[in-house]
Amino acid sequence: MGAGRMAKVHAASIVNAGARVATIFDPVSAAAEALAEDTGAKVCATAAEAIADVDAVLIATTSDTHVELLYEAVKAGKPAMCEKPLAPSYKQSLEFVATVGEAAARKVFLAFNRRFDRGHASVREAVQSGKIGRLEQVTITSRDPFPPPLDYIPRSGGLFRDMMIHDFDMARSIVGKDISSVTAHGSSVVDPELGKLGDIDTASVTMLAADGTIITILNSRRCAYGFDQQIEAFGATGMVMSDNPRQSGFRSFTKEAPGTDAPILEFYMERYGPSYTAEIRAFIR
Amino acid sequence: MGAGRMAKVHAASIVNAGARVATIFDPVSAAAEALAEDTGAKVCATAAEAIADVDAVLIATTSDTHVELLYEAVKAGKPAMCEKPLAPSYKQSLEFVATVGEAAARKVFLAFNRRFDRGHASVREAVQSGKIGRLEQVTITSRDPFPPPLDYIPRSGGLFRDMMIHDFDMARSIVGKDISSVTAHGSSVVDPELGKLGDIDTASVTMLAADGTIITILNSRRCAYGFDQQIEAFGATGMVMSDNPRQSGFRSFTKEAPGTDAPILEFYMERYGPSYTAEIRAFIR
Amino acid sequence: MGAGRMAKVHAASIVNAGARVATIFDPVSAAAEALAEDTGAKVCATAAEAIADVDAVLIATTSDTHVELLYEAVKAGKPAMCEKPLAPSYKQSLEFVATVGEAAARKVFLAFNRRFDRGHASVREAVQSGKIGRLEQVTITSRDPFPPPLDYIPRSGGLFRDMMIHDFDMARSIVGKDISSVTAHGSSVVDPELGKLGDIDTASVTMLAADGTIITILNSRRCAYGFDQQIEAFGATGMVMSDNPRQSGFRSFTKEAPGTDAPILEFYMERYGPSYTAEIRAFIR
Amino acid sequence: MGAGRMAKVHAASIVNAGARVATIFDPVSAAAEALAEDTGAKVCATAAEAIADVDAVLIATTSDTHVELLYEAVKAGKPAMCEKPLAPSYKQSLEFVATVGEAAARKVFLAFNRRFDRGHASVREAVQSGKIGRLEQVTITSRDPFPPPLDYIPRSGGLFRDMMIHDFDMARSIVGKDISSVTAHGSSVVDPELGKLGDIDTASVTMLAADGTIITILNSRRCAYGFDQQIEAFGATGMVMSDNPRQSGFRSFTKEAPGTDAPILEFYMERYGPSYTAEIRAFIR
Repeated sequence: MGAGRMAKVHAASIVNAGARVATIFDPVSAAAEALAEDTGAKVCATAAEAIADVDAVLIATTSDTHVELLYEAVKAGKPAMCEKPLAPSYKQSLEFVATVGEAAARKVFLAFNRRFDRGHASVREAVQSGKIGRLEQVTITSRDPFPPPLDYIPRSGGLFRDMMIHDFDMARSIVGKDISSVTAHGSSVVDPELGKLGDIDTASVTMLAADGTIITILNSRRCAYGFDQQIEAFGATGMVMSDNPRQSGFRSFTKEAPGTDAPILEFYMERYGPSYTAEIRAFIR
Repeated sequence: MGAGRMAKVHAASIVNAGARVATIFDPVSAAAEALAEDTGAKVCATAAEAIADVDAVLIATTSDTHVELLYEAVKAGKPAMCEKPLAPSYKQSLEFVATVGEAAARKVFLAFNRRFDRGHASVREAVQSGKIGRLEQVTITSRDPFPPPLDYIPRSGGLFRDMMIHDFDMARSIVGKDISSVTAHGSSVVDPELGKLGDIDTASVTMLAADGTIITILNSRRCAYGFDQQIEAFGATGMVMSDNPRQSGFRSFTKEAPGTDAPILEFYMERYGPSYTAEIRAFIR
Repeated sequence: MGAGRMAKVHAASIVNAGARVATIFDPVSAAAEALAEDTGAKVCATAAEAIADVDAVLIATTSDTHVELLYEAVKAGKPAMCEKPLAPSYKQSLEFVATVGEAAARKVFLAFNRRFDRGHASVREAVQSGKIGRLEQVTITSRDPFPPPLDYIPRSGGLFRDMMIHDFDMARSIVGKDISSVTAHGSSVVDPELGKLGDIDTASVTMLAADGTIITILNSRRCAYGFDQQIEAFGATGMVMSDNPRQSGFRSFTKEAPGTDAPILEFYMERYGPSYTAEIRAFIR
Repeated sequence: MGAGRMAKVHAASIVNAGARVATIFDPVSAAAEALAEDTGAKVCATAAEAIADVDAVLIATTSDTHVELLYEAVKAGKPAMCEKPLAPSYKQSLEFVATVGEAAARKVFLAFNRRFDRGHASVREAVQSGKIGRLEQVTITSRDPFPPPLDYIPRSGGLFRDMMIHDFDMARSIVGKDISSVTAHGSSVVDPELGKLGDIDTASVTMLAADGTIITILNSRRCAYGFDQQIEAFGATGMVMSDNPRQSGFRSFTKEAPGTDAPILEFYMERYGPSYTAEIRAFIR
């Protein structure tokens, strides 16, 4: 479902994961035709038709259409993978689960791509395997290389919903416990124009899990040195972290800069590109 | 002033800094005699006598005696260096300044040793020189290798006063701005015995500077891999950090551990030992 | 040309590079059919037929057939890319160039894949751009994770021809000068069976360029921690290196291993996989 | 013995190691007086007198006087520590051992300071403990930050005797086997003036141990980024290395230099200063 930018990313991932794009539906039929040409898929005139035609549904349309396509996929009895968010509001998400029932809801794979990042996944596995003992502190740093266009801000849902949502998900995924308190601080220091639109660009959130584990999330809409994506989990017997991978193993040593590494990855397609394929592999499995 | 453990550390630093320990006073005269023997200093029977005898006073006695010795040093017109804290309470600190006057108070060097750590100092200098542009986020991680003895806890003043005080000082030193809000979270997850004594062992503090800079401090009373002491300053044009130095440049690569560095430094004498000498050099200058 | 293991790697790279596999020829027609099915290509019964059918030829057959296919490609006026070696002997290589003429030979792209590794390429670019001043020392370390099967050794040509050939090529590519002396040392210390077959498994070569630059190449047929591939170029104003990239940014800190990185890449497909695509992009360009 | 630059370094190390400088002899009596004043030692008019006066002798005079002072120390039955070299020639060294006898010679500690570097020592210990299995390759890189003054070159003995001697010693110390072949290459590429004096400034030596272990030593008289001192030992089950320690844990990340470490140490007093104390501790022990 969908033939836009993310749909193209997913189409390539489907092939890399060893599956086939069978059918494409997009209300903009020119987009659907173009992607069909690239992938050898056929084009369907309606979502229902397309869903009927496939083994599994991948929803890569705009956020506001996710939940309605999910209702269709569930109705057709097809497993579905859908990028976050499930629905525009928490209420509508709960409604969806209540309406379709828990068994059907479990066939919906709500995809948070970063869970499939190799470094992040290793942190989660280390925590869950007990490598660092009882978990005590989790610190997540997410900084985008540059802010989104100003006209995107009003419909973004704000920094917490648009950007920190990934970090909330990673925190839940690593901690595996309910959160008992959330404290948030935000500043508008990167771009005053962004502040005038009512959003913040720099934020810090502290969450306490029921067992006393302290979670800290730091976000910034701008980072001079690239896409800074780090997770640290600290426990009774050690610490594990997912550091920023570098563009290559190149290092240089001069009088002025006596030990400089290659830059970190630029943005999410460079950093999380391979995670999309891993994610689809998990869905297929 | 003083002939205990820290006095010995300072005595060695005085020599390394190119000065001489002239006179020692300690109520425990055996301790004073022993340190005098090691340093070639003479011993005085009273603090006043010792202060009269020297060019400058270094106070390394127990915390509760600091302020009274400082009054004596100021009365004698001698510059004095004193380990934190100035006085047992904020009120008594303010009283001291009011009583002696600001001019005399400026001759008192209240020593926060970590400011003189080479890595930490480089972070401060980078921020102040504008290398990272407008400062937006500061993150300080301080983790002791193991908790203090349980019987120390009740007289420690608690984690914030005993341990995080250094991080508060570093934060002020780096940010150079007033703090407009402080939010603190704490857990007792390292040792339940410590919790029964009314203290916490794991903590997170978020502070906002008046200009929107967000400061995060993370503390733990126990760290399996050594004395974890890191500072990160993030700004509009870059980030600088003070990472944990390692015991040596040794690295090992085996099938099981394909890239292991030498351990980080063990505790504060290994990590901050050279800072004591740097601190005394600054005092002399 | 070819439908074996490397041909499959190249077929995937051709697609990733934005081109199309048009025609496949392989004397083993089942292999050709299988790869044709995967790629949508057609199958030709003879090499000449296949060459006539395409814009450009990629030769990925066994080493002993390279030169004869190259003669065919040149005869047909088609640009050709061919994995090293050009021919089984130096003499036959010179003959090929003499026979087809230099102009035609320049349309043959003899592919040394490692030149396209991002880290290695950055070292070469840094040297050529003058970043490290006059080049003085080049050190290349190449260690395979494990020795080849013993039955491969007799037909491998020996360590220098089979393995160090890549390092000779990288050295030439970085130094850009003629070599005036070569000194080689070898040992059989990894596996005595390999020594009995007349080959070595550990080697060191020192080469002097005409201008005094010293080049050192170190090889081993076995490396416990992965595929160790490093290049260092040292010059008058600095040093640049291509270090081993790691499988992810995962790092772990425990009492026993207080700072362990993720493993380096396992073998050449993990390390040099992306270089194959870069190489084909260069050929197409 | 001696009151020059290195004697001062050793005097400070003697104190740091918990011993006392008792007596100083130097033909230049003003130098002896000055160092005596700093250390509280007394001054003797002759070497014999000074040797008679102490528990142990440390020889830190010019290289050409070492052997004669060692004869005096041995005659007086005093243990002696002496910086390399033992004597101006190999022949005179053998003569010394033959003359005093092996038992007496064993009370002479011929000091090669770098063996006591923490990182280098860890490499040796790892090799000797079997951590990397059978040793196969050792690579030693030594690069001075800048060449010595030109007028020193003629009396230096040349690069191999003056500079690489330390690396020969480290190689022997790590490999612990006899060397069966030595191949040397040298270039004059750093400074043509140095070449005119008949010396080289860039060198590579390959040595084979009797068991096939290959040792490579790389030297340069000039290194733009500091004092480059690395050792790598590669074996059947892994690799260990002694990397260059850094001046601090400071790191900076900007758009232009996205990951720069603090500089490596500048020269031998910064890098090997602590080794002098460790060396004297070993001598005392």
